[in-house]
Amino acid sequence: MVPYGELSREQLLRMKEELEKQYEDVKGKGLKLDMSRGKPAAAQLDLAMGMMDVLNSSADLKCEAGIDCRNYGVLDGIPEAKRLLGAMSEVDPDSIIIYGNSSLNVMFDTVARSMTHGVCGSTPWCKLDNVKFLCPVPGYDRHFAVTEYFGIEMINVPMLSTGPDMDLVEKLVSEDASIKGIWCVPKYSNPQGITYSDETVRRFARLKPAAKDFRIYWDNAYSIHHLYEDDQDFLIEILGECAKAGNPDLVYKFTSTSKVSFPGSGIAAVAASPANLEDFKRHMQFQTIGHDKLNELRHVRFFKDLDGLTAHMKKHADIMRPKFEAVINVLEKELQGTGIGSWIAPKGGYFISFDAMEGCAKAIVAKAKEAGLVMTGAGATFPYGKDPKDSNIRIAPSYPTPEELAVAADIFVLSVKLVSIDKILESK
Amino acid sequence: MVPYGELSREQLLRMKEELEKQYEDVKGKGLKLDMSRGKPAAAQLDLAMGMMDVLNSSADLKCEAGIDCRNYGVLDGIPEAKRLLGAMSEVDPDSIIIYGNSSLNVMFDTVARSMTHGVCGSTPWCKLDNVKFLCPVPGYDRHFAVTEYFGIEMINVPMLSTGPDMDLVEKLVSEDASIKGIWCVPKYSNPQGITYSDETVRRFARLKPAAKDFRIYWDNAYSIHHLYEDDQDFLIEILGECAKAGNPDLVYKFTSTSKVSFPGSGIAAVAASPANLEDFKRHMQFQTIGHDKLNELRHVRFFKDLDGLTAHMKKHADIMRPKFEAVINVLEKELQGTGIGSWIAPKGGYFISFDAMEGCAKAIVAKAKEAGLVMTGAGATFPYGKDPKDSNIRIAPSYPTPEELAVAADIFVLSVKLVSIDKILESK
Repeated sequence: MVPYGELSREQLLRMKEELEKQYEDVKGKGLKLDMSRGKPAAAQLDLAMGMMDVLNSSADLKCEAGIDCRNYGVLDGIPEAKRLLGAMSEVDPDSIIIYGNSSLNVMFDTVARSMTHGVCGSTPWCKLDNVKFLCPVPGYDRHFAVTEYFGIEMINVPMLSTGPDMDLVEKLVSEDASIKGIWCVPKYSNPQGITYSDETVRRFARLKPAAKDFRIYWDNAYSIHHLYEDDQDFLIEILGECAKAGNPDLVYKFTSTSKVSFPGSGIAAVAASPANLEDFKRHMQFQTIGHDKLNELRHVRFFKDLDGLTAHMKKHADIMRPKFEAVINVLEKELQGTGIGSWIAPKGGYFISFDAMEGCAKAIVAKAKEAGLVMTGAGATFPYGKDPKDSNIRIAPSYPTPEELAVAADIFVLSVKLVSIDKILESK
Repeated sequence: MVPYGELSREQLLRMKEELEKQYEDVKGKGLKLDMSRGKPAAAQLDLAMGMMDVLNSSADLKCEAGIDCRNYGVLDGIPEAKRLLGAMSEVDPDSIIIYGNSSLNVMFDTVARSMTHGVCGSTPWCKLDNVKFLCPVPGYDRHFAVTEYFGIEMINVPMLSTGPDMDLVEKLVSEDASIKGIWCVPKYSNPQGITYSDETVRRFARLKPAAKDFRIYWDNAYSIHHLYEDDQDFLIEILGECAKAGNPDLVYKFTSTSKVSFPGSGIAAVAASPANLEDFKRHMQFQTIGHDKLNELRHVRFFKDLDGLTAHMKKHADIMRPKFEAVINVLEKELQGTGIGSWIAPKGGYFISFDAMEGCAKAIVAKAKEAGLVMTGAGATFPYGKDPKDSNIRIAPSYPTPEELAVAADIFVLSVKLVSIDKILESK
């Protein structure tokens, strides 16, 4: 395809006229499509329906330690749940605490705890004048929302194809003791689907932060969420790497089954060093008597072990893969070589990240919305909702049906083309 | 029975010798009994086993609003769960937010939120030099543990037979703007089983606190946990009372089904004014995408409505009542008129509060433990674990079987007698 920038004013205007006709056609259909959130489709949820049957009124509801899971007790999770999520997190069951239904809640509570009680005995962050977090961008809007809510200053760090720009990360954390954390989605990152390279992980594990209470918030949300069985990304296990580097306490590793079993009814976990886990538990013992052990048991009885999880995730992949490919195909067919957008075809996770021409993202999202397609708000992938280039758009292809997705991708591409042509015309 | 204090030294020594024989006998049995926590017995948990069947793989998992409860979404609870817990809390469904599995967690988070973000826009408590809570005593140890954990100073307020000493409460909150809250278990209080009188509730609703961000933490944990169908305590609904008094924002009302369905796998809720609920939700929207809606649905499908809850609680009462009566009977038979202890026979809740002679509680609990009976630690019912009179002991009769309970009550009474005799002998 010819780059749009090389087309004449007349060619562009002609093209625009044709595209506007198509746009009005699709708009006239009064569609309601949603590619805004990383929400599993109903077909994916159906995969776990068997989990509704594993605990019934005649089931034995004791965990393997002999504890009645219906009653109070067990602060940090039943042994078999620790083993299951330990395997998923590639750590020993002793290195893990099982939480409730939301790893976001665990991350939020971790920041909240650091605000009021510090980190492993450090000064509570609420007593400090400045607290900062590094935010690889584009990134996950809910991460940024948590730090913003607590008044933590966020500093953008560009994502490279290998993960965050480690030269910059190393420089900033070693120089500035007010930097207390960094948000990472290290595998199939949100939204780009990038998996951190071996070197990136090793450099993370060897960071020398000026702040003793600096922690890496390693949100391994998509650890087993591959699209291709035979073409998976590989991520080095960071807890072991930190231990090897003599920095055992540097990282909190979060995970959950929200996109494995049921969002909202999954189980979450944090893996960390003994000192960090003690810090978590010291807080938790005042916060709750324990999480939902029946739901822990339900997960273990259904998935059994890592093999069970892996087999289950293949079924998810079979549903997700065609959707990702449908979007990528439309992008390639319609935009490849036009110079008005770039994207990454990920091998897992929940998103496709699209970079429009500078200054076009907001207009594209608005254009799509006008035609009945809701996208993640432009800017959402940056701290404070501010994309300095107004360029990045997160595409979430999981929720719509394949049929809806084909239409949604068309609307998106139409919107990109129309907004980009206007942008190019401005400068002609 | 003759008051022990009126017995001669010789009579007491003879009695002691006989009691010590009995004590050594029971100690020799190597028993392991536990009356320490308000933990339902297995027979009570069996009552809700049907809840394990209401959601199965062929069930419709949409809530009445048509939302798929398996997926993300619905921050504050599905409509039917709001209706069920609204009915249980005697408020409109619109006045309630549904939370996860633990009302303690909601209370903890409420204090944590006030520390970092204040209350409806007030100065965050972590920025203040002094923050204080009033603590009716004896009270619930986990309440006190939360405020202690956040460095909040706790002030004891004596419990009367009508509830907290309201003269003192009114005086303190109107004079001291650093008093930000009060912990209340208004019905079948923990540990005394006292229900606040109408006048007490009305005086609470009409408080004029010096601090705008003062809130009553109304933990209505035992609202429907009666022992006698035909002899129940009645508690005035406080939200309505506060609204009438022109103080709509004065109270947070907490509840949960932990001791209705399954502890650890129940659902919790907070009822409050619109302004307070907005404050809760503003925080929650960063903390989580939503709680476990399948568990909400499970509760509604099983209990259906308030009638269903009430019918279910009668079954709990049938199990609890004989246990309470067994303990009360032993206390009456063995201690009535001895002058070495007093207690209240409650009409609901989970505890019997026992007041020993001053300076005896710790020794009695230790004595019981030596014979294989674990009680709640003496002092636990007071802030900082410090009972100024070393007198109050919380008895939790729910967990042991009736057979165990008979033995446990005997050990307890033996321990009371032995320690009290020593105490009296000291002064003879």
